[in-house]
Amino acid sequence: MARKYVIGLDYGTESGRALLVAVDNGEEVAMAVEPYPDGVIDDVLPGTGKKLEPDWALQNPRDYLYVLERVIPKVLMDSGVSGDDIIGISTDFTACTMLPVDKDGTPLCMKPEFAANPNAWVKLWKHHAAQPEADRINELAAKRGESFLARYGGKISSEWFFPKALQILDEAPEVYEAADRLIEAGDWIVLQLCGEEKRNACVAGYKAIWDEGYPSPDFFRALDPRFEHVVRDKMSEDIYPAGVKAGGLLPEMAKKLGLKPGTAVATGGVDAHVAVPAATVTTAGKMVMIMGTSLCHMVCGTEKKVIEGMCGVVKDGILPGFYGFEAGQTAVGDIFAWFIEHCVPASIAEEARKAGSDIHGYLGKQAAALKPGESGVLCLDWWNGNRSILVDADLTGLMMGMTLTTTPAEMYRAVLESTAFGTYTIIRQLEEGGVPITELYACGGLPGKNPLLMQIFADVTNREIKVSASDQTVALGCAMWGAVAAGSAAGGYDDVTHAAANMARLRDTVYTPNPEAHAAYEKLYAIYRRLHDLFGKGGDNAMKDLKAIKAAVRRA
Amino acid sequence: MARKYVIGLDYGTESGRALLVAVDNGEEVAMAVEPYPDGVIDDVLPGTGKKLEPDWALQNPRDYLYVLERVIPKVLMDSGVSGDDIIGISTDFTACTMLPVDKDGTPLCMKPEFAANPNAWVKLWKHHAAQPEADRINELAAKRGESFLARYGGKISSEWFFPKALQILDEAPEVYEAADRLIEAGDWIVLQLCGEEKRNACVAGYKAIWDEGYPSPDFFRALDPRFEHVVRDKMSEDIYPAGVKAGGLLPEMAKKLGLKPGTAVATGGVDAHVAVPAATVTTAGKMVMIMGTSLCHMVCGTEKKVIEGMCGVVKDGILPGFYGFEAGQTAVGDIFAWFIEHCVPASIAEEARKAGSDIHGYLGKQAAALKPGESGVLCLDWWNGNRSILVDADLTGLMMGMTLTTTPAEMYRAVLESTAFGTYTIIRQLEEGGVPITELYACGGLPGKNPLLMQIFADVTNREIKVSASDQTVALGCAMWGAVAAGSAAGGYDDVTHAAANMARLRDTVYTPNPEAHAAYEKLYAIYRRLHDLFGKGGDNAMKDLKAIKAAVRRA
Repeated sequence: MARKYVIGLDYGTESGRALLVAVDNGEEVAMAVEPYPDGVIDDVLPGTGKKLEPDWALQNPRDYLYVLERVIPKVLMDSGVSGDDIIGISTDFTACTMLPVDKDGTPLCMKPEFAANPNAWVKLWKHHAAQPEADRINELAAKRGESFLARYGGKISSEWFFPKALQILDEAPEVYEAADRLIEAGDWIVLQLCGEEKRNACVAGYKAIWDEGYPSPDFFRALDPRFEHVVRDKMSEDIYPAGVKAGGLLPEMAKKLGLKPGTAVATGGVDAHVAVPAATVTTAGKMVMIMGTSLCHMVCGTEKKVIEGMCGVVKDGILPGFYGFEAGQTAVGDIFAWFIEHCVPASIAEEARKAGSDIHGYLGKQAAALKPGESGVLCLDWWNGNRSILVDADLTGLMMGMTLTTTPAEMYRAVLESTAFGTYTIIRQLEEGGVPITELYACGGLPGKNPLLMQIFADVTNREIKVSASDQTVALGCAMWGAVAAGSAAGGYDDVTHAAANMARLRDTVYTPNPEAHAAYEKLYAIYRRLHDLFGKGGDNAMKDLKAIKAAVRRA
Repeated sequence: MARKYVIGLDYGTESGRALLVAVDNGEEVAMAVEPYPDGVIDDVLPGTGKKLEPDWALQNPRDYLYVLERVIPKVLMDSGVSGDDIIGISTDFTACTMLPVDKDGTPLCMKPEFAANPNAWVKLWKHHAAQPEADRINELAAKRGESFLARYGGKISSEWFFPKALQILDEAPEVYEAADRLIEAGDWIVLQLCGEEKRNACVAGYKAIWDEGYPSPDFFRALDPRFEHVVRDKMSEDIYPAGVKAGGLLPEMAKKLGLKPGTAVATGGVDAHVAVPAATVTTAGKMVMIMGTSLCHMVCGTEKKVIEGMCGVVKDGILPGFYGFEAGQTAVGDIFAWFIEHCVPASIAEEARKAGSDIHGYLGKQAAALKPGESGVLCLDWWNGNRSILVDADLTGLMMGMTLTTTPAEMYRAVLESTAFGTYTIIRQLEEGGVPITELYACGGLPGKNPLLMQIFADVTNREIKVSASDQTVALGCAMWGAVAAGSAAGGYDDVTHAAANMARLRDTVYTPNPEAHAAYEKLYAIYRRLHDLFGKGGDNAMKDLKAIKAAVRRA
């Protein structure tokens, strides 16, 4: 029997990619990336010359198909693998990225009568123009004492589904009226592939307030009488976990892509979440950290717990059969990049050049020679606000302890340490809330680039950290769910545990906590935590006061 | 009648300088600088190979004479002024810089039997090895409720006179026993010039706990029975204000220097203090700021007030007939230099180079384009601790409000602003304590180099700032006191008011507060002050905790 393969289709913010993976051992055989022709639409609506308001961020659904029709044939051609040997396709998408479609699933923005209406287009995850709607939802939910608020750290984000849907109703009731469905782009692409609308639990749960049911019609009516039946009329209440076969690939789509009709198509997923089994994790208690510009923490538990400051708790949201907890730090690699760009003097850049090193590497080497606590410098890692556990975008960075002999390496190390303290805070919060975390698994861009950071994370959290072997953990994880959707009868796997056992691998390097370093960090963490609670929980509102003054000055 | 001149002799930490000034209009005719051959002795005792303990800092009194005998002939030669036309000499010195001398005024370290004993040498102002003695003095004074503590911000520094004297007694009782006098170097140099020991009120008051009388023999006995009569046996209780003629130049000294025997020699002074009239200030309510690596604030009042956090209040300590208040910020220019050296990225250095500017100037231009509050960044200016009003060396720098778009210019401006907030805190403390401050006068290296800083100081403090025209305000002020010591009969002036009216000048540029900027700064200052009190007054000891951890790690 020929070797079998699956394709993971990873839809990002600027581009989409396909990874063709061998089912037997997870070998990554070929990858192709294609940028979206219209990219992120935040200035002018294509084909209209119409200027968008600030905070808008749209996409063109045609771009998703454009990418699909290029990257799949490309990985087939590059690998020489026959479409007949592809047994499954799985997709992951940014979320909440949503659009209105008609009865046939055609996006309203693709219809001439709505093409010039921005509210008919895809609202990208980072579309922030629905803030007034988010405010109304939060205010009403708080007033009514809706229990769902607590599950999401006390606040529904303007990035999520219902604020975006309500914005359509507010600003373009004709679009809302014409929409047969309001749908996640991740579920829409599955619909395009297999003709089946099978909404996935991950986006429903984390982005659309779904918890084996949505908020009540009564709640929606109180927001706007026309919104009362948004769920019944515009959504679906059939929600499926990851790895379920949504359907078979449609014949016309199969022909375009060079695949077999009927090939298993998995329910859609969200980037960070699909990565979990690619880091070998298929059980509770093991936290996966996707470490890049920001940091996304995912861990499964066996019981539902409502824990302050998490991004949400969703049944089947990460792995079928478990409660999935998500938390996040809004900036990690982004802070390091800011520091390297704005705070490293010419002399260090020159020394790094002479040593044949990049600045990160050179500073990292100097910083690695320091012991915990040796610099006397401490930071709060809030350059981009705090997602978990404070859920507050108005917090800002803080650095203290500088003297006239403080060096850039000392400050750099303090910045790294602060992000580890941020993760430690999340771990402690989860454990105190009844979700044990025994091991850490890392993937994303940072673990391979910054070994000092990884050791600091191990020392601060006092937990071993294993690192995913793949550089494409998201696309690999995505492909694995395709193998599960295909099932063993087709040459795939019947569950994600078997898929992970065969397809996922870890690096040899394991970061082991040094007990002495951890003891030192406990002392520093006590200070971090004190400042965290002081400035983060209203003890002193200096950061917000400064932001308010800044906003007033800039408005004036 | 030939034009008359005076010479100001300014003894600094590394070198001494002479400034030859015309009495009629303050014209600075010639200047000469000469480094001390032995410099700051903090490693090996000269002529012995003997290694000094940490924290020791000594000087060689021969160096003071060496410099004297070079710089005075040099300014005479360079200017072509005849020694006959020099009507007065005045000196200023670092303080407390003290030494043991014999009955003839010969330093004990110059005698063979004591040359190898470090305690026989000059203890320089920054000799910090008498900390155990300072601790004993503070502990005892607090226990006994000695009223003098409050006058010095609650703490006697290890840099001051009695800790240093007590260290001699503790460690080298034979030196203490052999010393006919323990004397300030500034008073010793006057003794060398005119044969008269006329101790000056400035050092006695600010460094030797003198307040129309020293602490009681009872207090000193409680420290050590042998110390009971330190004042009666080793010091002098005749204290003279600035501008008094200590005596006439000794014939043998006059010959060496090329001056007339009998030339008026003024009582000694301290660097920052002698500068005051050179900034045109001869009355109460006008604060003089010597702005350099650190910042020294001097203001005169008409009433004695004990104000928390000042460096001291001394009758005749700055100007005769007034109560002199001194306060200080331990680092100002030093923080800016640290920032420029350690925190400015290569890209900015390159842009500055292209613009043909230095980094200070280039960043200053970018920072000047910002409005108060626009950056959202705020600092506490404690990189080198806080002298006034917190009197705490263990405080450290803090910066908050950074986001991923914060620029180096924004941080630089926040650093400048924080030092202005530090001065504003001192001004408010003085005013709340009953010492009105109506105008500010600046001198030192910073005002000429950093106009943005000066405007920020004016805006923050809401006070006009005038700037001394001289680049050598200390040496000029010193010379002016020589003209006063000479008196009008000899061609000088009978008081400092007349001297200042004729010899001191201000620049044309006056920094005028912008009311709108001040209003914005009041909002920022409210936050600064809240954080100042929080971290500086024990609300949260994060900075001290970090320092303690740092010290423990470095010891281990």
